[in-house]
Amino acid sequence: MSNKKILILPGDYIGPEIMAEAVKVLELLRSEGEALEWSFGHLGGAAYDAEGHPYPASTQKAAREADAILLGAVGGPKYDELPRDVRPERGLLGIRKDLGLFANLRPALAFDELADASSLKREVIEGLDILILRELTGDIYFGQPRGRRTTADGHAEGFDTMHYSAPEIERIGRVAFEAARKRNKRVCSVDKENVLETSRLWREVMIGVAKDYPDVELSHMYVDNAAMQLVRRPKQFDVIVTGNIFGDILSDEASMLCGSIGLLPSASLDVNNKGMYEPIHGSAPDIAGQGKANPIATILSVGMMFKYSFDRGDIATRIDDAVKQVLKDGKRTGDIAAPGETVLGTQAMGDAIVEAL
Amino acid sequence: MSNKKILILPGDYIGPEIMAEAVKVLELLRSEGEALEWSFGHLGGAAYDAEGHPYPASTQKAAREADAILLGAVGGPKYDELPRDVRPERGLLGIRKDLGLFANLRPALAFDELADASSLKREVIEGLDILILRELTGDIYFGQPRGRRTTADGHAEGFDTMHYSAPEIERIGRVAFEAARKRNKRVCSVDKENVLETSRLWREVMIGVAKDYPDVELSHMYVDNAAMQLVRRPKQFDVIVTGNIFGDILSDEASMLCGSIGLLPSASLDVNNKGMYEPIHGSAPDIAGQGKANPIATILSVGMMFKYSFDRGDIATRIDDAVKQVLKDGKRTGDIAAPGETVLGTQAMGDAIVEAL
Ligand SMILES: CC(C)[C@H](C(=O)O)[C@@H](O)C(=O)O
Ligand SMILES: CC(C)[C@H](C(=O)O)[C@@H](O)C(=O)O
Repeated sequence: MSNKKILILPGDYIGPEIMAEAVKVLELLRSEGEALEWSFGHLGGAAYDAEGHPYPASTQKAAREADAILLGAVGGPKYDELPRDVRPERGLLGIRKDLGLFANLRPALAFDELADASSLKREVIEGLDILILRELTGDIYFGQPRGRRTTADGHAEGFDTMHYSAPEIERIGRVAFEAARKRNKRVCSVDKENVLETSRLWREVMIGVAKDYPDVELSHMYVDNAAMQLVRRPKQFDVIVTGNIFGDILSDEASMLCGSIGLLPSASLDVNNKGMYEPIHGSAPDIAGQGKANPIATILSVGMMFKYSFDRGDIATRIDDAVKQVLKDGKRTGDIAAPGETVLGTQAMGDAIVEAL
Repeated sequence: MSNKKILILPGDYIGPEIMAEAVKVLELLRSEGEALEWSFGHLGGAAYDAEGHPYPASTQKAAREADAILLGAVGGPKYDELPRDVRPERGLLGIRKDLGLFANLRPALAFDELADASSLKREVIEGLDILILRELTGDIYFGQPRGRRTTADGHAEGFDTMHYSAPEIERIGRVAFEAARKRNKRVCSVDKENVLETSRLWREVMIGVAKDYPDVELSHMYVDNAAMQLVRRPKQFDVIVTGNIFGDILSDEASMLCGSIGLLPSASLDVNNKGMYEPIHGSAPDIAGQGKANPIATILSVGMMFKYSFDRGDIATRIDDAVKQVLKDGKRTGDIAAPGETVLGTQAMGDAIVEAL
């Protein structure tokens, strides 16, 4: 069997620091005999610095050839004044679209050891385990036409197009129902069907998909109500499936519920389960270069990669367990430490997880 | 001076019950000599039942002639199967657009007496006082084109247009800065400028408006981050200003933070401060007709009406104080009662507030 090829894109600010710890995990697994190889590339601001474009041709080529991609984080103040077309987020949107990574899986999990770090009451989030499925290559992110124009009476106008086709909705729907089958068998589809035509189609298609999954329960919720219910009673959800822009908003809200955003990984998959894996948190410019960043979300992203792209749930479970062990042992980076707790740096945390593995 | 004319639209399900208590407040004020008169009309499902349309001509006429409008709540399961064009929410969107009610003011306030009813920790929300300003007559709610079509290869597609013009953004911006001047002098403008063309214009115009308010601090936040920050540290905000769809989502999220959604009023104003006032909560079909609904948000909406449309902040303050007094006295409706507390019905709560007034 040939090696699995991983493309590593450390990205900006804390990106390289957290990725170095993920690489330690890969090294350990390779030393155990797993057939892995990896190479490094640029995305985002780092790519702009090195090659003048946030998603340069060299990265495109390597990304297409890879079996899976690990991404650190992109963006930050250094790049804020760049022309819009070469800003780091263009690199992110570019690679998602280019590789057809339409299914963004974002678990929102409460780690019991950290429940007190949440702004929510312990009983509201204890045991929380939601999977948010966000469609990632359609919607108002990519719809045409979009732009600026001047009206007859001389006013500037800006416009964007929200857009979904039935096949786009159906394929993310199927991912949601398949995922729910392996979990608690409930899918909540979030839309704004009382206002938007796009949502009307969305809801119709979801109802159609549900017919193939009689064992899974489908419900519908308006996006405004979903934003509320996530705060009020987040444990009512199992799998949430929604479009790109609503998913952007709700998944960030959901990940903050747990008070453990430094711990949450994500996966973005194509139709063949080739995927890009990245922590949910950003590039944290304020702590970059100080060895303080929390590498856990990136390491858990490695676990997701093994589970979804390499069909090795066993390794994912080992990585999850190692992280839980380390947390149980009271090891904390600064972002998740309670007052008085001893704080580990990025490398020490990475080493502790490798040790536990 | 001629009487102030109020149009009362009780709406659906609990609407008439909570409105009856608001009318008691109006009666008291009139008996004290305030020059008020009011009449009743239909909106939403009730209007469909009575006149075959959720925003019938009779209501349009009365609404245009009124100085202010009090609305209960519209919608509910009875109307879910109606054709889209006559569903209750069409009535709501219709009256907003028809009257040019572009400025939706939604306070998110924590009542200290109820802090324990929140799913957030007391220290996170104690003293919380945010004003969300949502633009209400533009954006993807009304942008054209919108609809359905079939692609060349036979697939259904749905699409909607997000749209803002510079003057639309500027006028809601001015309302935000004016409001911030009377508060803590901070405006946070929420957009998705890293992705949307509409947001790019939005941000530019806000920066322009800010020049006329050197005493007010303007910041910008992406909508996904705002959804997070509202959970993480809501007290960082003073005034939030945003478009129609982001405002729909964030204002519902924010109102749930306080655990007191039954207590939050809202105002929707036109350029002359003529306004429609309504509770933030919905029509609560599950408890309709049982005399259980909480009338406080509707009564506080009466207060907002006096403040914004009738320039009588003194009466608004009296109403706010009466509500606080009643809460301090331990009076509770079912939705806000802690286990073991005595529960008042809708009428008893209304009477208690009138008493305190
Ligand atoms: C950086 C930005 C374009 C991106 C998005 O909106 O998709 C980010 O918020 C995310 O969720 O990955
Ligand atoms: C009922 C619906 C059309 C409405 C909206 O989205 O504006 C409601 O959610 C609101 O916030 O008043």
